[in-house]
Amino acid sequence: VEIVFLLFDRLTALDLVGPYEVLSRLPEARLRFAAAEPGEVVCGAGLTLRADTRRDDVTAAEVLVVPGGFGTQALIGDPGTDAWLRAIDATTTWTTSVCTGALLLASAGLLDGVEATTHWSAMATLGELGAIPTDRRVIFAGKRVTAAGVSAGIDMALELAARIAGDHTAQMIQLQIEYDPQPPFDCGSVAKAPQAVREAVEARLASRG
Amino acid sequence: VEIVFLLFDRLTALDLVGPYEVLSRLPEARLRFAAAEPGEVVCGAGLTLRADTRRDDVTAAEVLVVPGGFGTQALIGDPGTDAWLRAIDATTTWTTSVCTGALLLASAGLLDGVEATTHWSAMATLGELGAIPTDRRVIFAGKRVTAAGVSAGIDMALELAARIAGDHTAQMIQLQIEYDPQPPFDCGSVAKAPQAVREAVEARLASRG
Repeated sequence: VEIVFLLFDRLTALDLVGPYEVLSRLPEARLRFAAAEPGEVVCGAGLTLRADTRRDDVTAAEVLVVPGGFGTQALIGDPGTDAWLRAIDATTTWTTSVCTGALLLASAGLLDGVEATTHWSAMATLGELGAIPTDRRVIFAGKRVTAAGVSAGIDMALELAARIAGDHTAQMIQLQIEYDPQPPFDCGSVAKAPQAVREAVEARLASRG
Repeated sequence: VEIVFLLFDRLTALDLVGPYEVLSRLPEARLRFAAAEPGEVVCGAGLTLRADTRRDDVTAAEVLVVPGGFGTQALIGDPGTDAWLRAIDATTTWTTSVCTGALLLASAGLLDGVEATTHWSAMATLGELGAIPTDRRVIFAGKRVTAAGVSAGIDMALELAARIAGDHTAQMIQLQIEYDPQPPFDCGSVAKAPQAVREAVEARLASRG
């Protein structure tokens, strides 16, 4: 399986690394990390990742993974990014996003009239870009697959692994990464979080512009 | 909060990025990524991260995070690594590990007679290195905190965030990363996985030496 990850400055590292840690364990997985220019990319919280491939040198992928992060704001509506996403999508078996990566797919027109999800704070924007915002953690809409915020990429990738290689292989991967989550609080979605917690996060996100 | 992550070749990226994505959202978090030599480090499945700091230039940390991965095998018993871990641990408020990172803490003598956890496949080795292997996902033993395999670092870091900054802040972080996990299978621990899945993973791990 040839898997291409799109990298850009101020991406959210876990959006990418969740699916990476799952999909890299598929049999014969070949990974490429593509950015507008090859080299170092600084994630939103300061970790630096290396893109090994120039984006425009990638002309096809079986699986495309588009992470989110504050850096998506600079890429929404960017003609080069939109065109590249459309061109790669025409070759993929699966076109996927995590968190606000969905906004880039939508900007490229790939989610027009399609049920999709993103980080809860970006649902309205996703609708403005033509998708049908839908409150589920992972959404398979034909070959377009979107995951909710940040950590949802792990769940998405495991379901994708099952569709690509079967349940047994996906279960092997889940056990390898010991994914038996035990969150200390039950507040990981807006439906479950206390209102004061949600409002505090909204205020913090607003202050980052 | 000053947080130091130890980097080395063939670490498991999610072991590091899970806690990074949580702890970086603490108020006034300052992160350093330290390796024996600053520069690029290649993770087990091919992603490249950048260490911005020479390990021996780090002389103190409030929180130390030691990830695991196949690369730990080269560091267990390494005198320089053991000495550095002991020196930093003498300054920390919290000394933490994810997955087989616990083997490095144990090698340095920091888990002697201490209840600790690691990836399920490394529990026996953890005992041989002097710890008391204990089958829980996250273990707080005084200031020494260990997490089970790979994805357990997210749970560990959220609990740590609560102890450092309080439940409200930890809940904010959990909502920011939308950590409301929905694994597609209930097989993320050895107790839950079908025997055939466990045996297949054990065979695969054994073949990697």
